[in-house]
Parts: sequence; C-alpha cells; structure tokens
Amino acid sequence: MKKTIGIIGGMGPLATCDLFHKIIDVTDAACDQDHVHVLIDNNTNIPDRTAAILHGGQDPVPELAKSAGRLKEAGADVLIMPCNTAHYFYDRFAPAAGVPVLHMIRETAASLRRQGRRCVGLLATDGTVQSGVYAGAFKEADIEMLTPDATGQQAVMDVIYKGVKAGNMQIDLTGFEKAMDDLLARGAEVLVLGCTELPVAFQEFGIDRPNIDPTHVLASAAVRFAGAPLKEEVRQMYCFE
Amino acid sequence: MKKTIGIIGGMGPLATCDLFHKIIDVTDAACDQDHVHVLIDNNTNIPDRTAAILHGGQDPVPELAKSAGRLKEAGADVLIMPCNTAHYFYDRFAPAAGVPVLHMIRETAASLRRQGRRCVGLLATDGTVQSGVYAGAFKEADIEMLTPDATGQQAVMDVIYKGVKAGNMQIDLTGFEKAMDDLLARGAEVLVLGCTELPVAFQEFGIDRPNIDPTHVLASAAVRFAGAPLKEEVRQMYCFE
Repeated sequence: MKKTIGIIGGMGPLATCDLFHKIIDVTDAACDQDHVHVLIDNNTNIPDRTAAILHGGQDPVPELAKSAGRLKEAGADVLIMPCNTAHYFYDRFAPAAGVPVLHMIRETAASLRRQGRRCVGLLATDGTVQSGVYAGAFKEADIEMLTPDATGQQAVMDVIYKGVKAGNMQIDLTGFEKAMDDLLARGAEVLVLGCTELPVAFQEFGIDRPNIDPTHVLASAAVRFAGAPLKEEVRQMYCFE
Repeated sequence: MKKTIGIIGGMGPLATCDLFHKIIDVTDAACDQDHVHVLIDNNTNIPDRTAAILHGGQDPVPELAKSAGRLKEAGADVLIMPCNTAHYFYDRFAPAAGVPVLHMIRETAASLRRQGRRCVGLLATDGTVQSGVYAGAFKEADIEMLTPDATGQQAVMDVIYKGVKAGNMQIDLTGFEKAMDDLLARGAEVLVLGCTELPVAFQEFGIDRPNIDPTHVLASAAVRFAGAPLKEEVRQMYCFE
C-alpha cells in the first residue's frame, strides 16, 4: 500500500503546480492507479515569507501549521513544501506536524553527498541567501557552498525578477552567465537552483551548466518515501538505493 | 473572503495538474495571496471510469464520495472534477456531497448558450460519447450536438490513444482533420474538446478550428464561484456577467 503525500502549497501557486507535475513525471507508472495519492493545500493565505524574514512582516507559521494539520487530517503520511524561503520556518512547525516533513534543502544536500559532490554554487534570491537555510543544510552535510559576488548576485536577482517573474525572455544574460562561470571557476562542481524560477530560466533560455533542481529532488524523495517506483533515470540521477 | 475550491482529482493525475494550472492562469492576480485557496485530492485509488461503464468494472462512486468528504472536511466550499467520463456518476454522489459540485459539462453547455451557440460538434472518446453525459447536458441546454461518423470517430480515438497518450506527435492528422471539417460542414459552430487529451493535441499539432475546452470553462466557473476576479479576456470569452 503506497503512502499519501501532502503538499503545503500556495507559495506560490505555480511552484506548487510545478512540484505536483514533477511528482507525476518522476513516477514509473503505466496507469492512473500506479500514481501516488497526493493531497495539496494550495493555501494562499500564508503570508509572504521573505517579508517576514527581512522586513518584520506577518509570521507565516500559524498558516503553515494549519495547512499541515488539514493535510494530516485528510490522510497525508508525509508532507513537503515547494518554497525555499519557507524552510527558514521549518523548525518552528515541522516537529509538531505529527507526520514527517521532508526538508527540501537537506534532501538536496543528501543527494549531492551521494553523488560525491564536495563544493557547490548557490543561485538564489537575496532573501533565501540571507535566511541561511542553504548554508545551514550544506554545512551539516559537509559540503562547501559558494555564493556569487555582489555583482553576480545582482545578475541572479535580475534574471529572477526582471526576467522570469516579469515574463521578459529577452533579458541580457551576460551578467548571469558570468556569475555562473565564476562559481564554476572557483571550484563549484554543480549549481544549486535555489529559487523555483531558476529551473524555468534554465529551460526557457536553454542554459547548459551542471545543476541540481531542489524541487525535482524533493518530488523524487517524496515518491520514494511513498513507496512508489521512480523512473530508473531519476533513481540513478540522485543515487537512491 | 474568497471561497475555497476542492478538486476531486487523480482521473488522471496530469489532467488534475492541468486543471490546477488553468485555475491559476485564469485568475487576475498580482501576488500569491490574490490567488484562490485550492484543495486537491489526487485520489489515484478511484477505479477506471470507462471500465466501469462499458465493461462492468469496479464502481468508482465510493472513492468519489470519499474524496468529496475529505475535501469538504478540509474546508472546500465547492467541488470540481477534471474527468469527462466521471460525470456519468455525478447524480450518484454530488447531491450527497454537502457542498455544490460544479458540473463541467453543464457549465460548458451554459457558456455556449451565453455565446449564442445553437449547434456544436463533440470530439471525445467512445466511452464518453456512449456514456451520454454530453448528449444529456446539451439537450437540457437546447443545443444541438453532432458526433463524427464511424470513420471520423475512429480518427478521434487514434489521435487520443495513438497520438497524445502514446506521445507520438508524428501521427497522420488527415482523418482527424476530415472528421472536424465534416462536423463544421454539417453545421457545428464550434468543436467541444470532450477529452482532456484534446486541448493538448490542438496545442501540440497547432490545430486551428473554433473550439471550446470544458476544463478551461470549469476552471473559470470555479474561480468565479470562489469570488476571485477572472482575467478580463476570460470573462468575455465565456460571457460571464
């Protein structure tokens, strides 16, 4: 009997839809019934996470806890959330959720360890970088994590906000490409796409650099936890047993 | 305060994901919090609907009722389901759901009425055609509904099963195009894409014929029911007040 996955969503809705799509896509299934039972709470009442961390905005923890409670009550055996920044609040609600909450960033660090990586480059928003969620998880996993210099970080922000979020696919990528190549030249073996807009950017702009997508790792880890078979290429990619 | 939409999903998972995407896409929203709260039960334990109707397979109604109950319990104010064939079972579980269940096919018929359409052509699987779900709803709405002849119906089935479902985008479209043009020549003003694979086919093959996508209508009707603003072009397309 497969377990049921619960998604604490709404942060944002498109990232939630994308995680759901990845769960379906990584599962080795031949018919509807082979797929995993997934419950999704696209809870758009969760206050903005970056505003809470950087500007004293409303605390998102009560709504995160409400979503976790609803999903557990409806039958979820494991919870996941497709928002990098929300993981800053993980320790304040996950231990009380009553079911395991897979930690997207720790799962990513664990996959990189299994791949034998020792040094990675982080591409993420200022808020995610400053929240320290990646630095903490990678330190625990004993993986060195590099971030772009100030100019490079601004180029990452521009691709996310002035490019993908603004729907402007004509944006000049020179600065972003330099930021990525600097990280690789400094020793990063792979680039961590620590913002849900970045896999979109890589696909839309046809960017070709070694990378890992934490939402794809999370989808795969959740399907595996649920006891459904992963597609063979996915199992191999993340070195799952 | 916006209402919460519940999706009885899993029939199949990709169609569920697609309906969720359409709900996000038709909403006029500037930030996460402007979007509608959506609860999804991707219930892959629901038995195959076509098998139940045509071949005496397991009855899907108990699992449909379970999903409806879970979603209502979690806070859904209105329920929808992105599966044409499942609407055959609507009268056996919807009245007992405790919250309104929007009927995708009746919503589609109502939109076509508001557009002033009097005659449409149905493109759907043999199972959906034979279930009579479209014939019943269109008769109620006093809209004439044409179906392809036997050769045309086989071409529709081929595009769905040997084309989209099989991931074969090289399939010869001659028979399918003839089936569509026959319906239009017989007086159909618009083609109803009565199978969730068909909007995919129209997009992937670049097919250009007047058409209406019932899952897009359903997404729009649900967002409107929830009290969130629709994008202006969507509101106009379906003649919502």
